[in-house]
Amino acid sequence: MKQLHLGDTREFDLKKFKRFLLHDSPYFRILNFNLQAGQIFPVHSHPADGQLSIQVIEGKGVFLAENNAELPAETGDILVSDINEPHGVKAETDMRILVTIAPPF
Amino acid sequence: MKQLHLGDTREFDLKKFKRFLLHDSPYFRILNFNLQAGQIFPVHSHPADGQLSIQVIEGKGVFLAENNAELPAETGDILVSDINEPHGVKAETDMRILVTIAPPF
Repeated sequence: MKQLHLGDTREFDLKKFKRFLLHDSPYFRILNFNLQAGQIFPVHSHPADGQLSIQVIEGKGVFLAENNAELPAETGDILVSDINEPHGVKAETDMRILVTIAPPF
Repeated sequence: MKQLHLGDTREFDLKKFKRFLLHDSPYFRILNFNLQAGQIFPVHSHPADGQLSIQVIEGKGVFLAENNAELPAETGDILVSDINEPHGVKAETDMRILVTIAPPF
C-alpha cells in the first residue's frame, strides 16, 4: 500500500514535456506527464497486448489518434486505448495527464 | 479507443454512495464512486492477485486500511493497494474517487 500525491509533480519544462513515473508493478504502471501549452506528446503505439488510460487532470487540449484524428481532451476526460493503437496528446493550455498502463510492457 | 467523461457521472445519493462502471476489459476495470460527506466505502479486500489505484478527483476524506488506519485523501492523492489488502474510503466532504483495478477479478 502506498500513497501518491499529484500535487508533488506539478512541474513544467519549456523545452519538453515533463514525465514522472509514479508507480510500476507487474499489474500496472502509472505516469504523470505535464505539457506546457503547445507541447505535443507525439502519436505512437507499442506492439504489446494491454490497454492504457489517459486522464486529463488539469488543463485542456486534444487526444491524438490514427490518421491525424483529434478528440477533445478537457479536465475529467479519459481516453482508453489499446497499447498497440496509435495515441498521443496535444496541449492547448498547460495540461497535466495521468496515464495508467496495464499490464506494463 | 473510447472516451470517458467524468463530468457525466457527477451524481450523489443521500442513501448510499453512487457507483459507475466506466470501463471493463481483461486488462483493467475503471469505476467512479461518488460519496456524500459522511458516507463510507467500507474496508474490504478480495482474494485475488492484482493491484488497484484509488484517486481522489474531488473533495476530501481519508483512505481506510487495516487495523482502522486512516491516511489523508485529498484531491490529487492516489492510494495504490494490492487487491487482497484491506482498503476503503471515508468522505469528509462530498468526494469523488476514480478506481482502477488491474486485472479485474
